[in-house]
Amino acid sequence: MSEHGSNGEVQLENEHFRVTKWTIEPGGVIPMHRHDYEYVVVPLVTGTMHVTNADGTEIAAELVTGTSYTRPAGQEHQVENRGTQDAIVFVEVERLS
Amino acid sequence: MSEHGSNGEVQLENEHFRVTKWTIEPGGVIPMHRHDYEYVVVPLVTGTMHVTNADGTEIAAELVTGTSYTRPAGQEHQVENRGTQDAIVFVEVERLS
Repeated sequence: MSEHGSNGEVQLENEHFRVTKWTIEPGGVIPMHRHDYEYVVVPLVTGTMHVTNADGTEIAAELVTGTSYTRPAGQEHQVENRGTQDAIVFVEVERLS
Repeated sequence: MSEHGSNGEVQLENEHFRVTKWTIEPGGVIPMHRHDYEYVVVPLVTGTMHVTNADGTEIAAELVTGTSYTRPAGQEHQVENRGTQDAIVFVEVERLS
Protein backbone atom coordinates (compact mmCIF):
# COMPACT_ATOMS: atom_id res chain seq x y z
CA MET A 1 0.00 0.00 0.00
CA SER A 2 1.39 3.42 -0.91
CA GLU A 3 1.55 6.45 1.37
CA HIS A 4 -1.76 7.40 -0.27
CA GLY A 5 -3.61 4.34 0.98
CA SER A 6 -3.86 2.87 -2.50
CA ASN A 7 -2.09 0.18 -4.45
CA GLY A 8 -1.94 -0.86 -8.10
CA GLU A 9 -0.82 -4.42 -8.83
CA VAL A 10 -0.03 -5.02 -12.51
CA GLN A 11 -1.39 -8.51 -13.18
CA LEU A 12 -0.36 -8.74 -16.79
CA GLU A 13 1.03 -6.61 -19.59
CA ASN A 14 1.66 -7.49 -23.21
CA GLU A 15 1.39 -5.67 -26.54
CA HIS A 16 -2.41 -5.67 -26.33
CA PHE A 17 -3.41 -5.15 -22.72
CA ARG A 18 -2.22 -3.94 -19.37
CA VAL A 19 -4.32 -5.23 -16.47
CA THR A 20 -4.00 -3.68 -13.00
CA LYS A 21 -5.80 -4.58 -9.80
CA TRP A 22 -6.40 -1.45 -7.73
CA THR A 23 -7.13 -1.33 -4.02
CA ILE A 24 -8.07 1.90 -2.23
CA GLU A 25 -8.29 1.62 1.54
CA PRO A 26 -10.84 3.70 3.47
CA GLY A 27 -9.55 7.28 3.44
CA GLY A 28 -7.15 6.43 0.62
CA VAL A 29 -6.71 8.05 -2.77
CA ILE A 30 -5.22 7.32 -6.17
CA PRO A 31 -3.60 10.70 -6.84
CA MET A 32 -4.32 12.76 -9.95
CA HIS A 33 -3.33 10.87 -13.08
CA ARG A 34 -4.03 10.86 -16.81
CA HIS A 35 -5.23 7.84 -18.76
CA ASP A 36 -3.24 7.45 -21.96
CA TYR A 37 -5.35 4.52 -23.15
CA GLU A 38 -8.98 3.48 -23.42
CA TYR A 39 -9.88 1.35 -20.44
CA VAL A 40 -12.48 -0.90 -18.87
CA VAL A 41 -13.14 -1.05 -15.12
CA VAL A 42 -14.45 -4.30 -13.58
CA PRO A 43 -15.48 -3.59 -9.95
CA LEU A 44 -14.77 -6.37 -7.45
CA VAL A 45 -16.85 -4.67 -4.75
CA THR A 46 -20.02 -2.63 -4.49
CA GLY A 47 -19.39 0.85 -3.10
CA THR A 48 -18.98 4.55 -3.77
CA MET A 49 -15.82 5.98 -5.30
CA HIS A 50 -15.35 9.76 -5.43
CA VAL A 51 -13.80 10.99 -8.66
CA THR A 52 -12.39 14.51 -8.90
CA ASN A 53 -11.59 15.57 -12.43
CA ALA A 54 -8.69 17.80 -13.42
CA ASP A 55 -11.21 20.58 -14.19
CA GLY A 56 -12.45 20.49 -10.59
CA THR A 57 -15.76 18.72 -11.25
CA GLU A 58 -16.57 15.84 -8.97
CA ILE A 59 -18.77 12.78 -9.17
CA ALA A 60 -19.71 9.94 -6.87
CA ALA A 61 -19.31 6.76 -8.94
CA GLU A 62 -21.46 3.89 -7.68
CA LEU A 63 -19.52 0.70 -8.29
CA VAL A 64 -21.37 -2.61 -8.42
CA THR A 65 -19.47 -5.90 -8.25
CA GLY A 66 -19.06 -7.32 -11.73
CA THR A 67 -20.77 -4.44 -13.53
CA SER A 68 -18.20 -3.05 -15.95
CA TYR A 69 -17.86 0.34 -17.58
CA THR A 70 -15.46 1.92 -20.03
CA ARG A 71 -13.89 5.36 -20.41
CA PRO A 72 -12.02 6.99 -23.31
CA ALA A 73 -8.34 7.87 -23.21
CA GLY A 74 -7.53 11.34 -21.91
CA GLN A 75 -9.38 11.12 -18.60
CA GLU A 76 -7.50 13.00 -15.89
CA HIS A 77 -8.66 12.61 -12.33
CA GLN A 78 -8.02 11.48 -8.79
CA VAL A 79 -10.06 8.76 -7.16
CA GLU A 80 -10.92 8.53 -3.46
CA ASN A 81 -12.44 6.08 -1.03
CA ARG A 82 -14.22 8.30 1.48
CA GLY A 83 -15.71 5.30 3.25
CA THR A 84 -14.57 4.22 6.69
CA GLN A 85 -14.94 0.44 6.54
CA ASP A 86 -14.41 -1.29 3.23
CA ALA A 87 -11.71 -1.10 0.62
CA ILE A 88 -12.61 -0.21 -2.97
CA VAL A 89 -11.19 -2.87 -5.30
CA PHE A 90 -11.40 -3.03 -9.08
CA VAL A 91 -9.56 -4.42 -12.08
CA GLU A 92 -8.59 -1.97 -14.81
CA VAL A 93 -8.05 -3.32 -18.34
CA GLU A 94 -6.21 -0.87 -20.60
CA ARG A 95 -6.07 -1.32 -24.34
CA LEU A 96 -2.46 -0.59 -25.30
CA SER A 97 -1.45 0.92 -28.67
CA MET B 1 -29.92 -18.87 -18.77
CA SER B 2 -29.63 -20.87 -21.99
CA GLU B 3 -30.54 -24.51 -22.45
CA HIS B 4 -26.84 -25.17 -21.77
CA GLY B 5 -26.96 -23.74 -18.25
CA SER B 6 -24.86 -20.75 -19.24
CA ASN B 7 -25.50 -17.12 -20.02
CA GLY B 8 -23.50 -14.27 -21.58
CA GLU B 9 -24.62 -10.73 -20.81
CA VAL B 10 -22.97 -8.12 -23.04
CA GLN B 11 -22.29 -5.21 -20.69
CA LEU B 12 -20.80 -2.88 -23.23
CA GLU B 13 -19.58 -2.84 -26.80
CA ASN B 14 -17.90 -0.04 -28.75
CA GLU B 15 -15.17 0.17 -31.39
CA HIS B 16 -12.51 -0.78 -28.83
CA PHE B 17 -13.98 -3.34 -26.47
CA ARG B 18 -16.72 -5.86 -26.01
CA VAL B 19 -17.31 -6.80 -22.37
CA THR B 20 -19.43 -9.84 -21.49
CA LYS B 21 -20.35 -11.19 -18.07
CA TRP B 22 -20.57 -14.98 -18.20
CA THR B 23 -22.39 -17.22 -15.76
CA ILE B 24 -22.15 -21.02 -15.88
CA GLU B 25 -24.47 -22.83 -13.50
CA PRO B 26 -23.39 -26.14 -11.91
CA GLY B 27 -23.52 -28.75 -14.66
CA GLY B 28 -23.67 -26.02 -17.30
CA VAL B 29 -21.47 -25.45 -20.32
CA ILE B 30 -20.54 -22.72 -22.77
CA PRO B 31 -20.56 -24.79 -25.98
CA MET B 32 -17.59 -24.99 -28.34
CA HIS B 33 -16.71 -21.53 -29.70
CA ARG B 34 -13.80 -19.73 -31.30
CA HIS B 35 -12.33 -16.46 -30.00
CA ASP B 36 -11.81 -14.03 -32.85
CA TYR B 37 -10.15 -11.46 -30.59
CA GLU B 38 -7.54 -11.25 -27.86
CA TYR B 39 -9.25 -11.28 -24.49
CA VAL B 40 -8.83 -10.86 -20.76
CA VAL B 41 -10.79 -12.86 -18.18
CA VAL B 42 -11.54 -11.32 -14.77
CA PRO B 43 -12.95 -14.06 -12.48
CA LEU B 44 -15.67 -12.95 -10.08
CA VAL B 45 -15.51 -16.24 -8.15
CA THR B 46 -12.89 -18.74 -7.06
CA GLY B 47 -13.50 -22.17 -8.54
CA THR B 48 -12.57 -24.76 -11.14
CA MET B 49 -13.59 -24.44 -14.78
CA HIS B 50 -13.05 -27.36 -17.16
CA VAL B 51 -11.84 -26.32 -20.59
CA THR B 52 -11.96 -28.76 -23.50
CA ASN B 53 -10.04 -27.57 -26.54
CA ALA B 54 -11.05 -28.23 -30.13
CA ASP B 55 -8.08 -30.62 -30.43
CA GLY B 56 -9.50 -32.73 -27.58
CA THR B 57 -7.04 -31.67 -24.88
CA GLU B 58 -8.55 -30.73 -21.57
CA ILE B 59 -7.46 -28.59 -18.65
CA ALA B 60 -8.89 -27.68 -15.25
CA ALA B 61 -8.54 -23.90 -14.97
CA GLU B 62 -8.38 -22.70 -11.38
CA LEU B 63 -10.11 -19.34 -11.26
CA VAL B 64 -9.38 -16.96 -8.39
CA THR B 65 -11.61 -13.95 -7.77
CA GLY B 66 -9.98 -10.83 -9.19
CA THR B 67 -6.94 -12.62 -10.62
CA SER B 68 -6.96 -11.90 -14.34
CA TYR B 69 -5.45 -13.74 -17.26
CA THR B 70 -5.28 -13.20 -20.99
CA ARG B 71 -5.44 -15.46 -24.04
CA PRO B 72 -4.61 -14.84 -27.71
CA ALA B 73 -7.17 -14.82 -30.48
CA GLY B 74 -7.86 -18.16 -32.10
CA GLN B 75 -8.66 -20.16 -28.97
CA GLU B 76 -11.38 -22.70 -29.69
CA HIS B 77 -12.90 -24.56 -26.77
CA GLN B 78 -15.89 -25.37 -24.63
CA VAL B 79 -16.03 -24.44 -20.96
CA GLU B 80 -17.83 -26.40 -18.26
CA ASN B 81 -18.78 -26.05 -14.64
CA ARG B 82 -18.61 -29.59 -13.28
CA GLY B 83 -19.31 -28.38 -9.76
CA THR B 84 -22.59 -29.09 -8.00
CA GLN B 85 -23.03 -25.98 -5.84
CA ASP B 86 -21.70 -22.70 -7.09
CA ALA B 87 -21.95 -20.87 -10.38
CA ILE B 88 -18.79 -19.90 -12.25
CA VAL B 89 -18.93 -16.18 -13.04
CA PHE B 90 -16.38 -14.08 -14.91
CA VAL B 91 -16.10 -10.95 -17.01
CA GLU B 92 -14.53 -11.29 -20.44
CA VAL B 93 -12.96 -8.19 -22.03
CA GLU B 94 -12.33 -8.58 -25.76
CA ARG B 95 -10.15 -6.19 -27.67
CA LEU B 96 -11.99 -5.50 -30.92
CA SER B 97 -10.13 -4.70 -34.16
